[in-house]
Amino acid sequence: MAQINENYLKLQAGYLFPEIGRRVREFQKENPQADIIKMGIGDVTQPLTPAVIRAFHEGVEEMSRPETFRGYGPEQGYDFLREAIAQSDYMSRGADIHADEIFISDGSKCDTGNILEIFGYNNTIAMQDPVYPVYVDTSVMAGRTGNYMGNGYYDGLVYLPCTAENGFIPEIPKKKVDIVFLCYPNNPTGTTASKQELKRWVDYAIKNKTIILYDAAYEAYISDPDMPHTIYEIEGAKEVAIEFRSFSKTAGFTGTRCAYTIIPKNLVATTSAGIEKPLYPLWYRRHTTKFNGVSYPVQKAAAAIFTPEGKKEVKSTIRYYMNNAKTLRESLAKLGFQVFGGENAPYVWVNSGRGIKSWDLFDKLLNEAHVVGTPGSGFGPSGEGYFRFSSFATQQNVLKAMERLKNLKW
Amino acid sequence: MAQINENYLKLQAGYLFPEIGRRVREFQKENPQADIIKMGIGDVTQPLTPAVIRAFHEGVEEMSRPETFRGYGPEQGYDFLREAIAQSDYMSRGADIHADEIFISDGSKCDTGNILEIFGYNNTIAMQDPVYPVYVDTSVMAGRTGNYMGNGYYDGLVYLPCTAENGFIPEIPKKKVDIVFLCYPNNPTGTTASKQELKRWVDYAIKNKTIILYDAAYEAYISDPDMPHTIYEIEGAKEVAIEFRSFSKTAGFTGTRCAYTIIPKNLVATTSAGIEKPLYPLWYRRHTTKFNGVSYPVQKAAAAIFTPEGKKEVKSTIRYYMNNAKTLRESLAKLGFQVFGGENAPYVWVNSGRGIKSWDLFDKLLNEAHVVGTPGSGFGPSGEGYFRFSSFATQQNVLKAMERLKNLKW
Repeated sequence: MAQINENYLKLQAGYLFPEIGRRVREFQKENPQADIIKMGIGDVTQPLTPAVIRAFHEGVEEMSRPETFRGYGPEQGYDFLREAIAQSDYMSRGADIHADEIFISDGSKCDTGNILEIFGYNNTIAMQDPVYPVYVDTSVMAGRTGNYMGNGYYDGLVYLPCTAENGFIPEIPKKKVDIVFLCYPNNPTGTTASKQELKRWVDYAIKNKTIILYDAAYEAYISDPDMPHTIYEIEGAKEVAIEFRSFSKTAGFTGTRCAYTIIPKNLVATTSAGIEKPLYPLWYRRHTTKFNGVSYPVQKAAAAIFTPEGKKEVKSTIRYYMNNAKTLRESLAKLGFQVFGGENAPYVWVNSGRGIKSWDLFDKLLNEAHVVGTPGSGFGPSGEGYFRFSSFATQQNVLKAMERLKNLKW
Repeated sequence: MAQINENYLKLQAGYLFPEIGRRVREFQKENPQADIIKMGIGDVTQPLTPAVIRAFHEGVEEMSRPETFRGYGPEQGYDFLREAIAQSDYMSRGADIHADEIFISDGSKCDTGNILEIFGYNNTIAMQDPVYPVYVDTSVMAGRTGNYMGNGYYDGLVYLPCTAENGFIPEIPKKKVDIVFLCYPNNPTGTTASKQELKRWVDYAIKNKTIILYDAAYEAYISDPDMPHTIYEIEGAKEVAIEFRSFSKTAGFTGTRCAYTIIPKNLVATTSAGIEKPLYPLWYRRHTTKFNGVSYPVQKAAAAIFTPEGKKEVKSTIRYYMNNAKTLRESLAKLGFQVFGGENAPYVWVNSGRGIKSWDLFDKLLNEAHVVGTPGSGFGPSGEGYFRFSSFATQQNVLKAMERLKNLKW
């Protein structure tokens, strides 16, 4: 008699984004004429850039001829892409990360979920609150938590509140934790961490043999030259951190699918008997056994963003979104919201300041302004009362949405 | 102090195909002039067909314009692809599978590995021996086995020997098992199962509440009109089976990446307390939480194989490979090998008949004939003495390889 993984039964309601999708679809069905402006899921809207498209077509074309056709590629990704990443994203910033420490994948969502597979069951996992829900839900599914305790908390997880009071940078936990998820520039709060702040975490991790799972999916949105783009800019991070990166937000790959994960070769964790083991061979084994590489034309397209032309184009798209973020910040502040983020990240995080709950604000904006945002409480209990606006919309829609909000009655 | 998943330490040596790759690279390095013919990894060699390439380009082109650009798609795949699959692969064969029971993914390797996540730890898992190594290794990694016992066996797994003696169709296990992996047309033996044979397994599964994980990645190679292409052609299978399908071998997508998994909505397993729960919502939750959909242009390319033109082209490519299989069968038989498979599958499975061990034959063929095959023992203990030849090569290379084998001294 086959038995299910009962950890799934601990999960609460739907995953945030499908739930948003469901409410929007329902509203659209009842109001087919409504012109809904979607700034909820954090999905890019600008097309792939010309250099990327050209390389993508070339990759497809190569698949059409026997002499250039490619079957199974290396599971970890093609060298041409891994070397471009090592050079452009790491070496150029003084971070000593080599091509063979880079694993190309089809998404950071997959990687941040799957990474727990190489860790044992008895690790105490900490994460920011509010947080990208995938970290929580995959921890639950993988049996790394206890039961749901109500109020948005699972037993066994250590929550690190990030609120306006601490500038959305969590305190170093008093309890010793074994694994900590950190995301900067942060989703959902749109804030980022300085080198000094990250250094505190790296030092904590070195001292406690903690592994930092560092999600840097939004690093391309950093405009402040002093902010670190990778955790490996921090001394000692190679001994304690795994980093996740994605082409999704950097180059509009949300529907194209390409990402990468860095596992430094000298990163270790221990057996239950306390013997140190490198994590690299474990992830290598997982990646080669359970994954078959990213589509070749997609990898070719991804590599194009590291060409001079590709870099210029990508920067221009990011400027476009960050201009939206500026509009959002300014407009929402004028409307009386407390506004955070949106300076080194594509997300603007607001507090209504009117004591309105997150999902109530979601419903109000959807019903009365036909504007979709993301309820802060969907990211965790400390997100209650907050709301996320994404700058991944057209400029026209951002302006239109802000205009509609102006006319709302509170 | 972060702890590793110690199940990984139980794994033996390298995953089969990387190990083959390693030996081939080493040989090539020492013998740079050697013209190595690769029939080992079972990777396709024929390019994507014109209809697929055309749709692929169109998909890329759509990504270049704001009005047709696609960001995040539905994690389960686009309806246009799921509906084409339901119609062409299931409804047309009298198998009542609906589009919403189909989950599009980037590979069956991923899906057959990840599927265990929705099942509990205490299930007894059975699999054919020899077998696609991913089933074994992922079961080990996920803690669903005990320790390695030597001789190719892990404690806790139930091995179902498939040898010439039973026609490579395993006996129904005497011990009750909760989950069983079955693969037909079979990799590596190249044999397939009739409706009657599958019916015995479905009946067993219904009786014992066993879940069958049915890997049908090679169904497109079936030429015998009486052989089932899907397990859902068997009455009752919808109550007990999950099926895995792939575009890799059907349409040359090994480097393009697209596959799908069927979870019928009325499929159930139980909690530890014996309460039945549908598996569909569990996989749905996993898929939407840990995966972000397949690249849009790839899904568009995949859908092209269901057009009249695409179907014709795909059939022609399969005829090409099956002609190779025929050549392999005939040539290897003449050379004194016992030959199996290769009639409804792209693999020809041979026994040297000379008492040579599988890896010794591998090394002999590599060193003396510069021909790469796959050692049968790499697929499991019952594969010892056997060897797999793949018909995924050019006709010219198949002929050349067989010519070289003729001249070998034994």
